Amino acid sequence: MAEQLTFPAESAALLEPRLPPQLDAEDASRSRPFVTLTFATSLDSSLSLAPGVRTRLSGPGSKAMTHYLRTRHAAILVGVSTVLADDPALNCRIAGAPRQPRPIIIDANLRWTPRRSDKVFEVCRSGAGLAPFVLTGIEASSLPAASVELLHEHGGKYIHVPSTRSEATGRLRFSWDDILAALQAENLSSVMVEGGGQIINSLLEPAYHNLIDSVIVTIAPTWLGQGGVVVSPDRVTDSAGVPLPVARLSHVSWHPFGEDVVLCGTLRE
Amino acid sequence: MAEQLTFPAESAALLEPRLPPQLDAEDASRSRPFVTLTFATSLDSSLSLAPGVRTRLSGPGSKAMTHYLRTRHAAILVGVSTVLADDPALNCRIAGAPRQPRPIIIDANLRWTPRRSDKVFEVCRSGAGLAPFVLTGIEASSLPAASVELLHEHGGKYIHVPSTRSEATGRLRFSWDDILAALQAENLSSVMVEGGGQIINSLLEPAYHNLIDSVIVTIAPTWLGQGGVVVSPDRVTDSAGVPLPVARLSHVSWHPFGEDVVLCGTLRE
Repeated sequence: MAEQLTFPAESAALLEPRLPPQLDAEDASRSRPFVTLTFATSLDSSLSLAPGVRTRLSGPGSKAMTHYLRTRHAAILVGVSTVLADDPALNCRIAGAPRQPRPIIIDANLRWTPRRSDKVFEVCRSGAGLAPFVLTGIEASSLPAASVELLHEHGGKYIHVPSTRSEATGRLRFSWDDILAALQAENLSSVMVEGGGQIINSLLEPAYHNLIDSVIVTIAPTWLGQGGVVVSPDRVTDSAGVPLPVARLSHVSWHPFGEDVVLCGTLRE
Repeated sequence: MAEQLTFPAESAALLEPRLPPQLDAEDASRSRPFVTLTFATSLDSSLSLAPGVRTRLSGPGSKAMTHYLRTRHAAILVGVSTVLADDPALNCRIAGAPRQPRPIIIDANLRWTPRRSDKVFEVCRSGAGLAPFVLTGIEASSLPAASVELLHEHGGKYIHVPSTRSEATGRLRFSWDDILAALQAENLSSVMVEGGGQIINSLLEPAYHNLIDSVIVTIAPTWLGQGGVVVSPDRVTDSAGVPLPVARLSHVSWHPFGEDVVLCGTLRE
């Protein structure tokens, strides 16, 4: 029997104004999914002590919150580094969850080779989660047949998304507009962006602020120290080269939550 | 007329359990000063956009809080980098402040050459602040006479503190035990450590946690981006080289304060 979580109704009520419309009351006029950016950091803005090192940052209430938020979104999105490092289940373990969110994996360069034993497929086979949609820049004709078949068998698939090749790294990458257009095409009306560091930092770039409807950050009262996986977007400067703050939340509220605090706000203008 | 700040009595009451005994009710049995570590950061744990770049992080209420906290400590302490970068007044601008705190400047290698026009001396001459005590590793016989005289004229002085020479940098440095012993010898019963980044990060090292009675951190809902002056202590690992969290606060409370949040806790066991 898998672990079941509960999230207090009064906490859910506090978060409600920050969340997308209920999934059975969707707004068909939206041109893109409602985007919630959510993650937990230390005081020194680390997601974990090092890539792939599971780090218990926040308290049990915070974990229940994450799973509650998953019930309130049509999709949850992570980068391929998180999948490779953590083998995450990407499902919702709230007791009595009415539905499961669709896992979205950003894998422009096809670094992930899905395996039957991956947790995301295990929970899928046991009826406790959905199979992932994998967004990739690789053409369908170049995808490994076994991976395509494994995903298909579980109800998932690859979705081709336009990409550009980074001159610095030689790697394919997506714009967030294209990612959200791909989700919209799948009738996914809301997405909760969970991580990891590269995904979060890229979404915090000024070009994307108007795409972010809601930001929910949990902060734990600990310093992990240098060398962690840090949330801090690339520097932005004015025309004279003077650094500027990259992002500032508006409509801010802070909610103490056990030993942690939950920060809510928006980056949309 | 210098700017005067006010701090609401109800906010002061919230902070009172986190502060040293009132200065007129001191505990003569203490073997070292009460240490409060306080600073304001962005969500990505930056104190400022870059060294020497004044960065308005937190709201006006937070500034008043800093000055209120200064009234509640016998001394306030900053590193020489902060003095060189900011030319700070290091006084208390709360309306009706009963007394001024003693500025302590950590300058092991004597990088600061005091000048009559420095703000810390200006406020001293106008009766709105005290002259600094400069803690240095340089022997008295090697101190520049003009600097000694300028400090003395304003009521400040150099204090020699035992130091070790870093093999990595060739520079003198202090241990916090020696710094606090020097303050104790001056009958300074409490000290508020304000910054900058090097000072804060060194105090967060595990060896010093038992010296820190109170931690008060203001967090502003903004990301400054890569390249800022970051609070994040040096990495700590176990005997197998696996990274460990460096510091975790206990007795935690979070206080929303305008758009910011104030985090209180302790590192002492």
